[in-house]
Amino acid sequence: MHAEILATGDEIRTGALVDSNSAWIAQALEEAGVAVARLNGVGDDLERLTGILKEIGGRADVAVVTGGLGPTVDDLSALAAAAANGVGLVMEPEALAAIEEFYRQRNRPMNPSVRKQAFLPAGADMLANPVGTAPGFRLRIGRCAFFFLPGVPFEMKRMLADHVLPQIDRMRGERRETRLIKTFACFGLTESLTGERVGGIEERFPGVKLGLRAKFPEVQVKLYASDPVAAEAVGRLDAASVWARERLGDVLFSEAGESMEAVVGRLLREKKASLAVAESCTGGLLSSLLTDVPGSSDYFLLSTVTYANDAKMRLLGVNAETLGRSGAVHEETAQEMVGGVRRLAGSTYGLSTTGIAGPAGGTSEKPVGTVCIGLATPAGTFGYRFHYTYGRRSMNKQMFAMKAMDILRRELAGVVHSP
Amino acid sequence: MHAEILATGDEIRTGALVDSNSAWIAQALEEAGVAVARLNGVGDDLERLTGILKEIGGRADVAVVTGGLGPTVDDLSALAAAAANGVGLVMEPEALAAIEEFYRQRNRPMNPSVRKQAFLPAGADMLANPVGTAPGFRLRIGRCAFFFLPGVPFEMKRMLADHVLPQIDRMRGERRETRLIKTFACFGLTESLTGERVGGIEERFPGVKLGLRAKFPEVQVKLYASDPVAAEAVGRLDAASVWARERLGDVLFSEAGESMEAVVGRLLREKKASLAVAESCTGGLLSSLLTDVPGSSDYFLLSTVTYANDAKMRLLGVNAETLGRSGAVHEETAQEMVGGVRRLAGSTYGLSTTGIAGPAGGTSEKPVGTVCIGLATPAGTFGYRFHYTYGRRSMNKQMFAMKAMDILRRELAGVVHSP
Repeated sequence: MHAEILATGDEIRTGALVDSNSAWIAQALEEAGVAVARLNGVGDDLERLTGILKEIGGRADVAVVTGGLGPTVDDLSALAAAAANGVGLVMEPEALAAIEEFYRQRNRPMNPSVRKQAFLPAGADMLANPVGTAPGFRLRIGRCAFFFLPGVPFEMKRMLADHVLPQIDRMRGERRETRLIKTFACFGLTESLTGERVGGIEERFPGVKLGLRAKFPEVQVKLYASDPVAAEAVGRLDAASVWARERLGDVLFSEAGESMEAVVGRLLREKKASLAVAESCTGGLLSSLLTDVPGSSDYFLLSTVTYANDAKMRLLGVNAETLGRSGAVHEETAQEMVGGVRRLAGSTYGLSTTGIAGPAGGTSEKPVGTVCIGLATPAGTFGYRFHYTYGRRSMNKQMFAMKAMDILRRELAGVVHSP
Repeated sequence: MHAEILATGDEIRTGALVDSNSAWIAQALEEAGVAVARLNGVGDDLERLTGILKEIGGRADVAVVTGGLGPTVDDLSALAAAAANGVGLVMEPEALAAIEEFYRQRNRPMNPSVRKQAFLPAGADMLANPVGTAPGFRLRIGRCAFFFLPGVPFEMKRMLADHVLPQIDRMRGERRETRLIKTFACFGLTESLTGERVGGIEERFPGVKLGLRAKFPEVQVKLYASDPVAAEAVGRLDAASVWARERLGDVLFSEAGESMEAVVGRLLREKKASLAVAESCTGGLLSSLLTDVPGSSDYFLLSTVTYANDAKMRLLGVNAETLGRSGAVHEETAQEMVGGVRRLAGSTYGLSTTGIAGPAGGTSEKPVGTVCIGLATPAGTFGYRFHYTYGRRSMNKQMFAMKAMDILRRELAGVVHSP
């Protein structure tokens, strides 16, 4: 089954808007077992729209089109679809009734121009839009079944789930197969070294495909299995997952789609433990990530960002002597910072960061990309030093924050560092 | 000039990655006066890649391709381009030297597989990549000049600016006209209300085009002027800019492409002033944004994130009485927080946030989206309350942090709030 996606609109064509709809649809189709062959984008131009619909109609079995269903003169999808088939637009009473009902329910006055949305190409089947005013439609052009959806993401997503995926599933009939995906979120090794850990998995588990995806600063290992018999796909993926889990070991932090901060939060919650954070070079990013988790106020007590030595001394009780001897970027300083913030907060655990995010401030001994991380546990304080070579301030901040969370995750999960 | 963009890679085709590169390139070309006619996307499939290159080669004058230049077996762009022209790959010594130099400078061992990147289609002109290992190249296929760039966004952006835009400009030759763009970065009104402030500008200044772009949480107002005679375009844009600047007034925070945090940083630096921050609901995001600015350690002294009332009292000296009477989310509490952190840091200015980012924690009196912001200046402390209806935690955090920075910006710049 050859599938394509077409995004329409001048905002897409000119780059004023990043087309996230197409990625959403491609992923949904992929997970439903339909591989998307091509993505397309054109602006609000009747001739070009009509042309590309005919082109896709000669190439694909199924296509999803987004955008151009609204009430303005720029909304040309229905007109182009009709032109591609050499037919006219006809008023669809069911569509008009749905539009009127939408306004009635919301007590909003209905602008006469929205009636335009009830005119669909002759031969089209309306697709109801329960969350907006523009109905979609299904229409055959050439050899291809086209699904026309609105460009507003939440309307598109709802209609994709309600109409498109079930109808495509029925279209596939005998060719239907179960397709499964397993995602392992990893941190701590480069993409290629992470891949090496699960090298040979495709040969060892025939029918399982491996995919690697860098989602900075994490690396995702994906396993795909498909089979006409559901139990076959499940069995194959399970066996491969057991092996992959074992091989990934300490770098694997989630199989459930959780972010690192969500994993750390869950582990803290399970231990009924609390956390305090003392940041320097990460400048608040570590705290911001940790508090992105809904409900994090249950375990996240407080944090400080202290750039200046003076602030490190006064707020956290870092010793002037330590700063004089070792400097602000040092394992010892990181340990005194984290011990200080844990005492200040009365928390179970503490994390600290002090380093050089760049672009300035590096020395030959402590170049940009150097970070010292402190961990406080009920057993004591520990200091670590790492060096990254990204060069860019924002990437360094992200990597430093992620590394700090990973150190706490390993501590909480009782993971032993691999060499 | 018919221009197209092609994004390649299975991560694009399957929707694992949202294709933001194409939007970036479309916008850059658009701003350079080249309208993009079509966007295309295909996966790592040699036959399909070769086919679409030939197809675009028969249709376009210029095309930019991203992705597929790396060292792995999935990286097929050079091979497909060679196949489309019926030629082979040849080793480009200059490319190999650049790759070797890249590794030498970073003291990193060079994996032999990266040599693959030095093989370009016969007849291609190498495009140097100063920030990565994969060189790009320019190649004519059919009637179209193709520019092949890496898929890594910051490498692509650098090479687009260094090579592609200047070369396209030369290609346009006689048809070249001066195209100017002026961007006003605004904050504080919705996109449509911001647009209303400059409504009628196209009629008032013939030849000037208006564009609005939401770049959450800011809104950009763009003015475009083009003319074969450079002075004409300059004069027209200048006149319109004077008018727009006046009309935008207090919501305009930068005309120089600066972020809000960079503007605040510059104003603090100009005043030789320093800043301390007390966050609650923004959880570190406000500090992280402020410290994203290189050199921010010169004026950013310290910040605290205090979720718990206890921490607000102990670190910032917020009164138990105030918390009991008004609650954690209140202008009074925000004022005590900001007064406390300014005293703690000995800073010139202070900012504080306390609110409900959601999804839980809202009440009928203080629903999710409520934020109180405190400002401390040498003249005293001030408290403000706002309510936003985004619903999503991450959007609320962003909006709250941006609003706090804007309040400080207005104070530092001496901007009077418009009603």
